[in-house]
Amino acid sequence: MIKAYAAFEPGGELKPFDYDPGPLGDQQVEINVEHCGICHSDLSMIDNEWGLSSYPLVPGHEVVGTIGAIGAGVTQLHVGQRVGLGWHSGYCMTCATCMDGDHNLCAQAESTIIGRHGGFADKVRAQAASVIPLPEGLDPVTAGPLFCGGITVFNPMIQSQLSPTARVGVIGIGGLGHLAVQFLNAWGCEVTAFTSSETKRIEALELGAHHTLDSRDIAALVAAAGRFDFLLSTVNVTLNWDAYLGTLKSRGRLHVVGAALEPLRVPAFSLIMAQRSVSGSPVGSPATLAKMLDFAARHGIEPITEDFDFSDINEAIAHLRSGKARYRVVLNQI
Amino acid sequence: MIKAYAAFEPGGELKPFDYDPGPLGDQQVEINVEHCGICHSDLSMIDNEWGLSSYPLVPGHEVVGTIGAIGAGVTQLHVGQRVGLGWHSGYCMTCATCMDGDHNLCAQAESTIIGRHGGFADKVRAQAASVIPLPEGLDPVTAGPLFCGGITVFNPMIQSQLSPTARVGVIGIGGLGHLAVQFLNAWGCEVTAFTSSETKRIEALELGAHHTLDSRDIAALVAAAGRFDFLLSTVNVTLNWDAYLGTLKSRGRLHVVGAALEPLRVPAFSLIMAQRSVSGSPVGSPATLAKMLDFAARHGIEPITEDFDFSDINEAIAHLRSGKARYRVVLNQI
Repeated sequence: MIKAYAAFEPGGELKPFDYDPGPLGDQQVEINVEHCGICHSDLSMIDNEWGLSSYPLVPGHEVVGTIGAIGAGVTQLHVGQRVGLGWHSGYCMTCATCMDGDHNLCAQAESTIIGRHGGFADKVRAQAASVIPLPEGLDPVTAGPLFCGGITVFNPMIQSQLSPTARVGVIGIGGLGHLAVQFLNAWGCEVTAFTSSETKRIEALELGAHHTLDSRDIAALVAAAGRFDFLLSTVNVTLNWDAYLGTLKSRGRLHVVGAALEPLRVPAFSLIMAQRSVSGSPVGSPATLAKMLDFAARHGIEPITEDFDFSDINEAIAHLRSGKARYRVVLNQI
Repeated sequence: MIKAYAAFEPGGELKPFDYDPGPLGDQQVEINVEHCGICHSDLSMIDNEWGLSSYPLVPGHEVVGTIGAIGAGVTQLHVGQRVGLGWHSGYCMTCATCMDGDHNLCAQAESTIIGRHGGFADKVRAQAASVIPLPEGLDPVTAGPLFCGGITVFNPMIQSQLSPTARVGVIGIGGLGHLAVQFLNAWGCEVTAFTSSETKRIEALELGAHHTLDSRDIAALVAAAGRFDFLLSTVNVTLNWDAYLGTLKSRGRLHVVGAALEPLRVPAFSLIMAQRSVSGSPVGSPATLAKMLDFAARHGIEPITEDFDFSDINEAIAHLRSGKARYRVVLNQI
């Protein structure tokens, strides 16, 4: 039996929940969970915001642990190895998208917490291809948030072939943004953090931002006209998109990983006259996850976390819901 | 004196207008105009749609002719050479954008018909860098529209590094779209023409489209979900952008060269979930113009034109205004 924590109704408190995972599949591994980050999408699933939840629902998709068992067909991982698991726990492996290396875009990809049970548990299972070894040099206690929050901001740097010569703006300094600042600094870019919080402004500078800009100051946005090659928006609110587009140079790109429900309003002339683009992306592929972990280990990039015991899971969730998390909440087995 | 045709008021008929261009600049050439296409942006300038017009206004920026004189500093062109001139008649040549080869994005770029006199004339002048030799194999009578309409659809293929393996949709089969279909076919792509006109549908197939799709048929758009790598929109009306985004594969791109005044409504989730992008671009750089002409000559790509004598200029403009041009109107010196 796997001892998990589950929500039993939309928005409900998490309670102990044991389930029998059945026999281990040939291509599966079972992870003994040591640490698991809490992501905003765990809250969305607990609350059934997307209409995708079924209960009991076991959240948790920023898992770090050691492999306890492997299926008969698993050749790339071994028992005892320390690994991580993120948003996806399996891929079809054979569609054109998977065969192109874009497993994260596979239409049949399995999500760790949709229609199956996630990492708020003593064990969690996943297809071996979705489970990534943790390289030497990464602290297992803080690495969990890299597997969803981290990859969400690192993936666009790979996908857009971002040049280290670029001037980049990070919109929103939170769970995602505080990692983006670190990654972009190590990538060699000039990094500007957009935030309206004075404490976050100072922390962003400590994390590697070269400049900061008050995201609520329209005059400052106007003064930054034509300054950035790349803007990475991590926020899920509607911004004055045209004002932000105006801060892009020719050929500049606004890339969104936070999704406001209201469509972006994008004037065609703002794109055409300066050859700009607007794009988005989800989490990354297993290959990109591995590159990210290697890059993070090499550069000492680490999520800033607040730690809770698994037994205090509802307190941890309440802290994340309060908006006061700095910057990512992680649950630990005692 | 240069003998031109000018509008003397917004929306006014064109009338003969002679002007003295003064001494030829060191970096300038003077072109003896043989042919000049009429572009919708000539109408926009005649009508002062963009608030950029001053009168008398001499339109014309799809010029083909021979060089009649060169300035003292011009080394790359010679008298008697057959050349073309498009939307830009000069660049600063030294800003970071120009130095990067993106002269077409230069903030100081001079437009052939803004604040100076264009190609509806017996002669027109321009900075030598903006004047491109016509390669062997291109018919001077029909080549004019390549210099604005053609480059507008060819440039995105270069800028996006479009793969010949791509499945591409061309939205709108008109002055721009009928050239895009030809370029994309020769580029090796699978080409689908989006049009609601039965006669244009048949012509698009003759021009190299492999498939057609009724742009007004929402059911057909829905059925084409996930089909295209690249959509090139040449229309200047508001479409159901999210329905068009839905026809893109993962990593697909919607690229606009026609500008609707109303902002595009782009749902962030449509970008994020399938790593899609929306982009735009203006005309191309001189280097890209030269590549386009070479490519057009190699593949026998030619604008379909309707010819008028310069003396029938107002009739030609009325024909273009009527929306019945198939596909590009060209003025010829007798």
